[in-house]
Amino acid sequence: MTKLWEKGYELNREIECFTVGEDYLLDQALVKADAIGTLAHAKTLEQAGILNSYEVESLKKVLLKILKEDITITPEEEDVHTAIENYLTKELGELGKNIHTARSRNDQILIDLRLYSKERLFEVEETLLESCRKLYSLAQRHRDIPMPGRTHFRVAMPSSVGLWAGAFLESLLDDLILLESAYSLNNQSPLGSAAGYGVSLNIDRKFTAGLLGFAKVQNNVLYASNSRGKIEAVILSALSQVMIDLSKLATDLIIFTAPEFGYFELPKELCPGSSIMPQKYNPAALEILRAKTNVVISYLFEVLNIISSLPSGYNQDFQETKGPLMRGFEITLASLKVAGLVISNLKVNEESLLRGFSDDIFAADEALRLVRQGMTFRDAYQEVAKHLERLEASDPKENILSKTHLGAPGNLGLEVTKERMDEAASKLKKQKEVYLNAISSLLGAPYEI
Amino acid sequence: MTKLWEKGYELNREIECFTVGEDYLLDQALVKADAIGTLAHAKTLEQAGILNSYEVESLKKVLLKILKEDITITPEEEDVHTAIENYLTKELGELGKNIHTARSRNDQILIDLRLYSKERLFEVEETLLESCRKLYSLAQRHRDIPMPGRTHFRVAMPSSVGLWAGAFLESLLDDLILLESAYSLNNQSPLGSAAGYGVSLNIDRKFTAGLLGFAKVQNNVLYASNSRGKIEAVILSALSQVMIDLSKLATDLIIFTAPEFGYFELPKELCPGSSIMPQKYNPAALEILRAKTNVVISYLFEVLNIISSLPSGYNQDFQETKGPLMRGFEITLASLKVAGLVISNLKVNEESLLRGFSDDIFAADEALRLVRQGMTFRDAYQEVAKHLERLEASDPKENILSKTHLGAPGNLGLEVTKERMDEAASKLKKQKEVYLNAISSLLGAPYEI
Amino acid sequence: MTKLWEKGYELNREIECFTVGEDYLLDQALVKADAIGTLAHAKTLEQAGILNSYEVESLKKVLLKILKEDITITPEEEDVHTAIENYLTKELGELGKNIHTARSRNDQILIDLRLYSKERLFEVEETLLESCRKLYSLAQRHRDIPMPGRTHFRVAMPSSVGLWAGAFLESLLDDLILLESAYSLNNQSPLGSAAGYGVSLNIDRKFTAGLLGFAKVQNNVLYASNSRGKIEAVILSALSQVMIDLSKLATDLIIFTAPEFGYFELPKELCPGSSIMPQKYNPAALEILRAKTNVVISYLFEVLNIISSLPSGYNQDFQETKGPLMRGFEITLASLKVAGLVISNLKVNEESLLRGFSDDIFAADEALRLVRQGMTFRDAYQEVAKHLERLEASDPKENILSKTHLGAPGNLGLEVTKERMDEAASKLKKQKEVYLNAISSLLGAPYEI
Amino acid sequence: MTKLWEKGYELNREIECFTVGEDYLLDQALVKADAIGTLAHAKTLEQAGILNSYEVESLKKVLLKILKEDITITPEEEDVHTAIENYLTKELGELGKNIHTARSRNDQILIDLRLYSKERLFEVEETLLESCRKLYSLAQRHRDIPMPGRTHFRVAMPSSVGLWAGAFLESLLDDLILLESAYSLNNQSPLGSAAGYGVSLNIDRKFTAGLLGFAKVQNNVLYASNSRGKIEAVILSALSQVMIDLSKLATDLIIFTAPEFGYFELPKELCPGSSIMPQKYNPAALEILRAKTNVVISYLFEVLNIISSLPSGYNQDFQETKGPLMRGFEITLASLKVAGLVISNLKVNEESLLRGFSDDIFAADEALRLVRQGMTFRDAYQEVAKHLERLEASDPKENILSKTHLGAPGNLGLEVTKERMDEAASKLKKQKEVYLNAISSLLGAPYEI
Repeated sequence: MTKLWEKGYELNREIECFTVGEDYLLDQALVKADAIGTLAHAKTLEQAGILNSYEVESLKKVLLKILKEDITITPEEEDVHTAIENYLTKELGELGKNIHTARSRNDQILIDLRLYSKERLFEVEETLLESCRKLYSLAQRHRDIPMPGRTHFRVAMPSSVGLWAGAFLESLLDDLILLESAYSLNNQSPLGSAAGYGVSLNIDRKFTAGLLGFAKVQNNVLYASNSRGKIEAVILSALSQVMIDLSKLATDLIIFTAPEFGYFELPKELCPGSSIMPQKYNPAALEILRAKTNVVISYLFEVLNIISSLPSGYNQDFQETKGPLMRGFEITLASLKVAGLVISNLKVNEESLLRGFSDDIFAADEALRLVRQGMTFRDAYQEVAKHLERLEASDPKENILSKTHLGAPGNLGLEVTKERMDEAASKLKKQKEVYLNAISSLLGAPYEI
Repeated sequence: MTKLWEKGYELNREIECFTVGEDYLLDQALVKADAIGTLAHAKTLEQAGILNSYEVESLKKVLLKILKEDITITPEEEDVHTAIENYLTKELGELGKNIHTARSRNDQILIDLRLYSKERLFEVEETLLESCRKLYSLAQRHRDIPMPGRTHFRVAMPSSVGLWAGAFLESLLDDLILLESAYSLNNQSPLGSAAGYGVSLNIDRKFTAGLLGFAKVQNNVLYASNSRGKIEAVILSALSQVMIDLSKLATDLIIFTAPEFGYFELPKELCPGSSIMPQKYNPAALEILRAKTNVVISYLFEVLNIISSLPSGYNQDFQETKGPLMRGFEITLASLKVAGLVISNLKVNEESLLRGFSDDIFAADEALRLVRQGMTFRDAYQEVAKHLERLEASDPKENILSKTHLGAPGNLGLEVTKERMDEAASKLKKQKEVYLNAISSLLGAPYEI
Repeated sequence: MTKLWEKGYELNREIECFTVGEDYLLDQALVKADAIGTLAHAKTLEQAGILNSYEVESLKKVLLKILKEDITITPEEEDVHTAIENYLTKELGELGKNIHTARSRNDQILIDLRLYSKERLFEVEETLLESCRKLYSLAQRHRDIPMPGRTHFRVAMPSSVGLWAGAFLESLLDDLILLESAYSLNNQSPLGSAAGYGVSLNIDRKFTAGLLGFAKVQNNVLYASNSRGKIEAVILSALSQVMIDLSKLATDLIIFTAPEFGYFELPKELCPGSSIMPQKYNPAALEILRAKTNVVISYLFEVLNIISSLPSGYNQDFQETKGPLMRGFEITLASLKVAGLVISNLKVNEESLLRGFSDDIFAADEALRLVRQGMTFRDAYQEVAKHLERLEASDPKENILSKTHLGAPGNLGLEVTKERMDEAASKLKKQKEVYLNAISSLLGAPYEI
Repeated sequence: MTKLWEKGYELNREIECFTVGEDYLLDQALVKADAIGTLAHAKTLEQAGILNSYEVESLKKVLLKILKEDITITPEEEDVHTAIENYLTKELGELGKNIHTARSRNDQILIDLRLYSKERLFEVEETLLESCRKLYSLAQRHRDIPMPGRTHFRVAMPSSVGLWAGAFLESLLDDLILLESAYSLNNQSPLGSAAGYGVSLNIDRKFTAGLLGFAKVQNNVLYASNSRGKIEAVILSALSQVMIDLSKLATDLIIFTAPEFGYFELPKELCPGSSIMPQKYNPAALEILRAKTNVVISYLFEVLNIISSLPSGYNQDFQETKGPLMRGFEITLASLKVAGLVISNLKVNEESLLRGFSDDIFAADEALRLVRQGMTFRDAYQEVAKHLERLEASDPKENILSKTHLGAPGNLGLEVTKERMDEAASKLKKQKEVYLNAISSLLGAPYEI
């Protein structure tokens, strides 16, 4: 038997291709999660008196084999759930045919994506924290290197490389709050919801949730079904924010590494060339990063729009939310790594940065000087505006160091961000331990992501 | 003087209209926030030795007047910041001309939107919790009323009105997590960031943050500027999730109140008619609710795309993120209220619900019955599939009550959701108190939203 | 009587506000179109024997009055259709109560939007052609002014101001093809479709279409209903392309007018300042233009998503497609005007442009020179790449003039674009005449947009 | 040598992976187009005196081999352009190294996508016309089968299966106008634009355009570069409209094939089942079709957002517009085929359709009857509304046949749509001939898509 729902008729081949789509390919990434979820389900069935401990042990052996070997899902099998049930039936006969008791593919794909997303969220958070540490180091090392600060893409007020890098760092740390929020929504076990209406067997859903290291059961079984796509969108929204931060970094660097600015330099090892122009070293990775940001945003919208007008209960439309989630994770991870590489290898060109300081960059400071001498700000503003030619260059470094209130170039508050990074890293470590311990204990063998 | 940046030349009229846009209209909703922020800024200037306590008292009096009277912003004034500075200057002369010391419109609009969003988030959360309580009551009152459960919009397995209503309730409660996440990002004070590069005055940004009831200072001053649009998007993402929940409710009800189903009835007071067809009572509010969901999603998209390719620092593009945020709040609030009205007035038609039970809705339960008799699930599935005609109707109510695992129709776990609602309400109350106390104390007068 | 569908019950006030929304405000812009459509409908009813010629004359008089005076739609009236029927009934008694025979608000709003959109399309096309003429003049005047050509935002090969301006010009001319496509879809009369199912009266829909100057009847009456939102999206897609062209222009100019480049200068009359920095002249209009592009794209998205999952026939969701259409037109028109203003006032700084020529900009030309000497291109490429330091500056003007194949800097083909502009202008003029003549003849009075 | 731009340094491996992405995989679909474009380029170089006729013959032989065999692009080669140049160099030595003279990968990918899109547009239009013919046949066969017409998803007025099917047919025919518009924008040759700034060789771009069957040269070389993504978006906008039509069809059918309606039946060969519920036959293909509509819309937005803020000239971001275009074509083609299959196999259940007629569906007709008797419409409306219980069922078939104005159920105007289909088919045939003849003549061998 190939398909779980086969019952004496042949599905039209074209319809089959269309409905399966690339599902069987995407599901390769879910084999591990589906095997783990299946083992937790088996233990739940044991507790409910459907399977005995010997049967669970047999299932466990085969599932561990699947975990090690990985299996290939064929298009005819449609998805990972079918592939694994078929595999179990092939290896264990009747026992395999019983594993689907009290579950549906609906709650299987939910649990698979919960486990998959949890692992990917760990990776994204870790990689993000690495990028943060690189930004921290960049800001720290160049905290006092002056950099023209801009508004409206026009030189505005004195700034510093430290301030510039620190801004990205804090933005990414705020994204962690969103990722954690997504983590928390994702950290509830849907297992036992079956097709969204529960089952006529007295299973213990809290027990299952505990086996898999979840913080809680997703209570209402219909809500479990309805939340398909919802949590995906919450995750993609957080990933979009990460990407937008990286896109801003890329946008700045594409401009500031251009010879007309030369504030920063990218080693040519990071820059491919042109097929026709021998002289070119292009910031292609930064441009791709910028474009990929739009890709991840479009994934978010794909998911939001798919789910925004569906009635309650499972609808096949949900299937199309799987690809954007998975690709969203992949792109964000790759982008964070590339951004990290760029940050680590960025050369800061102090001379060019200083050349960027025009005299009128000090205009606002001059107006404030007049205020301190007793003029009102609005009059001082007018006064300076009227005589811009009188403005004299100040020493950029002196200027930035003199701005000492919290968060200003002369007082970056990097120690605060250091603390936030450390706390986040330690929280993440704990979350990961809870998860890895649960899975290791379920498998009876050390488990690593 | 009309514009804050006037300095001896006339801006082209067409350009002025285009750049001001509807800003001056939107800003009417920010008058209160801008006046409050201005008072906190004045106290900060006092502490920094720029203003004396007498001057701050004078400013306070005028600002309190503005708070009470509301002022009208003219297109020539461009925005609320200009209108208020002009007003202060008109009333207080030189003193008014000094209030802009150490601040920029960039950090003013940031603080205005932080305060505005905080108040709107309170309202959204309160209204959401009200809808939750109505859903709770609906679920509670009809916990044992059978309802055909559907997948793929086809009758699937027995469900209940309680399960159906409870699913929306839990989805909304999960949205609260996202709203809280947005609240937390929004709960940092940008004041003192000025144009994004700080100022050459030793202001105490923590002091300002405290005056306004913020949990913390948004440290890096450039990040404060860069976060424009970001927090807006985070809020709109949370609001989108709320809207999508309501849209699912609307989608279900548009169908289930149609005469072909008749599961539920809407009183005609909620249904406008047709200009040509005398017999019509249309679920127009539900359709608008469904459409508005797409509107809020498009706002999110608008903001994300505006910010996704901007360089660091303030860019005028940010101005266009204000409208979507404000309208997003308004729509979500109105939608929650309408949804609440619908939920409260929904008539549940048990007879029609029972008529919706076909015999084959019990097929999965029958397969599980065979499993309990010793057949494997896959064989039981085949057996039932082959002899669908043999399926006999069970008693729907008995069926749903027999499903007693957590979150199933016979064990809705409503007490858990009750607890979550109560906790959320109490947390919200505390947050609001912190805020209202801070503002009341700043104003020296009781403040209400 | 206030509402067309009133029949003895009171609609809940909150529901009323929610479903009417801002419709009554938006509809102010449709008064003219609705009055014109109503007159054409009256003539159709006359032809069908429902009204007599005296009655039609009476209606015409009042409708002409409405055309001249404009009326104000109250929220209680909901929409323009109700306001006009009420007005007619107030003025003409029984006759007014008969005007809705054989029509529905569904086909009224369709006809209103068709007429409205036709007029706005005329305006957009005219303004676009004006911008084209300004770009043509810019390109013509500076056809031989060298400009560094860029790829990946890095200097690439010699280019010219003429080539740069001409590229926008041709892009806009291609947009005209899309606008014309939208025009053609919009140029079909929906009148007579009523609620989407026709009427039991033998009306002559071709006659009505002819009265209003339409090219054809939109045949299938249900398709007329279903096309709501569809044509809106087609129009918004064309407008998005126009906006994206202007956004590219704005993006280039924001960068190239920055002091670091100085290729172009914007007169300060086009640049507002800063409230804190006395020296600033910001390219705010260009930034708003860039942001507005995202706004129009989000409108397209809003409409597509609203209509993408609706069943056949009228759904109230359609109401929400009206705002984005109207605002999309307004924004695009304003943006084209601002862009025209910018193009007309742009100062070209030849000196700065020449300063932008680095020696290695000639690398590809040098490789081609070696090819002409007998080397293969790939070897020539390598040779040049290896010895970039040997590259010598050529004369930029000589270089661009030497590139004489079609469309290259030395042979811009502006005469071709001139021809396209002239053809487009003449086609547009004819379309407008057909329309204005039809309406003037219907009204028995000269009609202007 | 592997990469076209290699010049003595090694690109960082991670950056390479990130910038190449899946390009090398997508480009497999462009091998044919790139080979054809390369041959046209070779002939252009012959005409320009760079290659001789013997050399062009040699290149032709190898290119024809590539056309027959297909080649596999490796990730190291990055793209199809590199793979083909490498292949030519391997086979022909020096000659291969000369083929890139006067061209850039920028104009190669442009020409590849133009040819690719042209072929796909042919396929989409052909398949769309096939679906139209099936809808025509469905409408024709069931022109007089009554069907309840709905507004607001509530029974509204009598309709027919013919009207329902005809509405989709006309919507798809209007989409053809958009596809033709896209075809026309795509039907211009970019070759010779090189990197966007032309080349210092006197190539004849009109000659090249003619060889490839293009209607014209895309004149301005920078516009050729700038139009990357633009034409993709125009195509995706047209495809979105096709998908939205199919989505409406799917939305209707998911509901109307549900047992509660039973208007239509899908053969079970088109409906997969459930893994847990033995009784289920799900309309999964229709749900996937509905979801895929959102996917194609998200591709449109991905492309629009990628291009909406790029400066002039080639930017690597463009690379990310290739995937959405290609996948958009694939999905639309597959969806049209599935929709065709569904339309062909749909069983119309007249009995259920008639059962759907409630008495009050005739209310508007009754009001019009009273109008014909002399009552005003508004009074008639009130009269009928007050006494809905008096409404008597009419004969549905008689009712629809009595509505005989153009486009109404009794006068569907199918002959008009027949004419449109025939004209479109014949226009398409001619366009295809022009293209196939040009390519066949270029290759000196019969060419088929």
